[in-house]
Amino acid sequence: MITREECAALDAADPLAAFREDFTLPPGVIYLDGNSLGALPVRTPERVRAVVEEEWGRELIRSWNDAGWFEQPYRLGRRIAPLVGAAPEELVVCDTTSVNLFKVLTAALRLRPGRSTVLGDGAAFPTDLYIAEGVTGMVPGARSLLVDPAEPDAHLDGEVAAVVLSHVDYRTGELLDMPGITARVQAAGALMIWDVCHSVGAVPVELTASGADFAVGCTYKYLNGGPGSPAFLYVAERHLAAGPLQPLSGWFGHARPFAFEPGYEPKAGIGRFLTSSPSLLGQAALEASLDVWERADRAAVRAKSLALTDLFISLVEDLDGIEVVTPREHDRRGSQVALRHADGYPVVQALIARGVIGDFRAPDLMRFGFTPLYLSHTEVWDAARHLAEVLESGEWKDERFSRRGEVT
Amino acid sequence: MITREECAALDAADPLAAFREDFTLPPGVIYLDGNSLGALPVRTPERVRAVVEEEWGRELIRSWNDAGWFEQPYRLGRRIAPLVGAAPEELVVCDTTSVNLFKVLTAALRLRPGRSTVLGDGAAFPTDLYIAEGVTGMVPGARSLLVDPAEPDAHLDGEVAAVVLSHVDYRTGELLDMPGITARVQAAGALMIWDVCHSVGAVPVELTASGADFAVGCTYKYLNGGPGSPAFLYVAERHLAAGPLQPLSGWFGHARPFAFEPGYEPKAGIGRFLTSSPSLLGQAALEASLDVWERADRAAVRAKSLALTDLFISLVEDLDGIEVVTPREHDRRGSQVALRHADGYPVVQALIARGVIGDFRAPDLMRFGFTPLYLSHTEVWDAARHLAEVLESGEWKDERFSRRGEVT
Repeated sequence: MITREECAALDAADPLAAFREDFTLPPGVIYLDGNSLGALPVRTPERVRAVVEEEWGRELIRSWNDAGWFEQPYRLGRRIAPLVGAAPEELVVCDTTSVNLFKVLTAALRLRPGRSTVLGDGAAFPTDLYIAEGVTGMVPGARSLLVDPAEPDAHLDGEVAAVVLSHVDYRTGELLDMPGITARVQAAGALMIWDVCHSVGAVPVELTASGADFAVGCTYKYLNGGPGSPAFLYVAERHLAAGPLQPLSGWFGHARPFAFEPGYEPKAGIGRFLTSSPSLLGQAALEASLDVWERADRAAVRAKSLALTDLFISLVEDLDGIEVVTPREHDRRGSQVALRHADGYPVVQALIARGVIGDFRAPDLMRFGFTPLYLSHTEVWDAARHLAEVLESGEWKDERFSRRGEVT
Repeated sequence: MITREECAALDAADPLAAFREDFTLPPGVIYLDGNSLGALPVRTPERVRAVVEEEWGRELIRSWNDAGWFEQPYRLGRRIAPLVGAAPEELVVCDTTSVNLFKVLTAALRLRPGRSTVLGDGAAFPTDLYIAEGVTGMVPGARSLLVDPAEPDAHLDGEVAAVVLSHVDYRTGELLDMPGITARVQAAGALMIWDVCHSVGAVPVELTASGADFAVGCTYKYLNGGPGSPAFLYVAERHLAAGPLQPLSGWFGHARPFAFEPGYEPKAGIGRFLTSSPSLLGQAALEASLDVWERADRAAVRAKSLALTDLFISLVEDLDGIEVVTPREHDRRGSQVALRHADGYPVVQALIARGVIGDFRAPDLMRFGFTPLYLSHTEVWDAARHLAEVLESGEWKDERFSRRGEVT
């Protein structure tokens, strides 16, 4: 078994170690929940302050032009594009993941007018399923069908307009084969929509190279954009010339917003997927975190992610009552480790009391996210040791850990 | 003509004068664009800082429960409710005005299944029209029809499912008769949706007493929530028991979000109109501004708004080339004054160069917003004098004022 000293040596040789200084983390905490809400970058408070006090407070309405507020959805989109393998003009930052999924799913149905089925992953984060229900509920004859994500092929008949899948499963951490699935879906005449919420910033994402038609994602997990930070959407360049594809046809996506014309005409390009004025405070925080991400080598991030998850798995796989749910194969693993334990809820609470923050997903999964920019091998070693101690001591049986609360 | 000294005396007797200290405004600026982007409250930067550095940075994921992030859309909704005459359980803060209009408009069509026409005001802020186009474009047989807001009655046939109107016209500042129009629309069997973006915080709004079915509004104008701050929506209590009314059926509106069930079932009550996790930074800023609003007497706000707009109109109505577009009758006036001038664009630019910030709306309207909490009679007098000087001197003809830019 690897020792703590050996982990310290790995940290000393870690090419990403210096990024730890770019994040603020409270003392005494090992934060393994960056897959749910990423940590605060050191530079974010100052950027948010400047937008509040200077751009808003001092320059007021003039900032729409002078501070580039109109351009912010595109500017941030161009900066996220390389993180998901998209062209700069294929990505825009706006709204939320759910709202953006509504837009692209409607667009997909419009691009496949003779087809009426949307396939989704029955085990996906449910908002994707609920939104698919919402969209198909508005389109006569359309239906939403839930399938096993590993086997969408059996359902790919001539009725399928689009398939929506999570690139990484939010519970198990399993990574899907984006290019392979995309190719099979498209070969069946359907369009492929990826939800990259749990992969952007965590694993390599190659939307354009995979041939993806659409994608949506959030920025508050591995991208450290802050609670409720704005989401993004990707539309393959080949779909950007089509007519009005999406029904959230707000003013901000109009070809000539300041002409205040009564009829809607979409902007050229990705701007037609915009709806409303951007949330400038949320976008300011995201801007600061992208400053950090632009300095990070993505291959190094992936290598360290795999090293940390390998390390954690090796340290906990033989613990009593623990089953490792996350795939062992590197090409099937995201950047989190899910462990099944019959008493997962109180075990996670006991870990949190020790300062090791992971989370729990019903009925029995403990989730631990590994964020390569601010987590060390030593911390992973310490977290595994805390878990071993919690299980061996039985301290999780303490009554204060038994109450069920909400954990996001 | 009233003198500047008389205005100073009015300021000395102004019961709202002390509120000026609650806002940060740059020196040398008379800000008459609070109808577009409200000024920064003094306490907002600290509240935003605390959410960023403490709730996010220090408490991390725990803030979802410990800082009440889950409850924030409802808590803010309950605080805005009295400002629009709604019951606390009828209002929620979320998304943007356009997205919320999409939700309530779809709900209205579902509540009137035999009807398929949506009436809108052809002169409304266009996002309302574009969204109506987006919704009706998804509902077979539905259509969006633009009418004169003063005369919707002629179009109220048995086909009309819903009418969407702005309480205050964003260009002219005209205030519509909310209870009267609502009653006539409902007498014809249709549902009434009000857009209160330009009236909340500016004029008395009585949604429940008027019998309104739905309403949407933004918080970045008179409510001072900051650029791109979250919007709100109102649903009359009688419509909250109906089935899944709105199609943006995201996870946050599910009856049991943490059960992660594959099928959507809406929350009881107004929560069913939620879609996604809230934007916490934007909501933090709004929270701070509502602290100010809760101390303001609404009758005093309305009285001062009318006094300021009366004053401005009396000072500018006889200027050369100026036509007052805003109604003179108090019960038909919002909290802005619109002046028509053939060269409105350069005149507004010349005023901005003097520190008097208003805005321009094509083809020839100059808009001036009067915010009773942070504007004095003296400032209004000074603004009117600047306008007189700009017109008399002809300085607006300077070439630097002629470039057309975007002004929101």
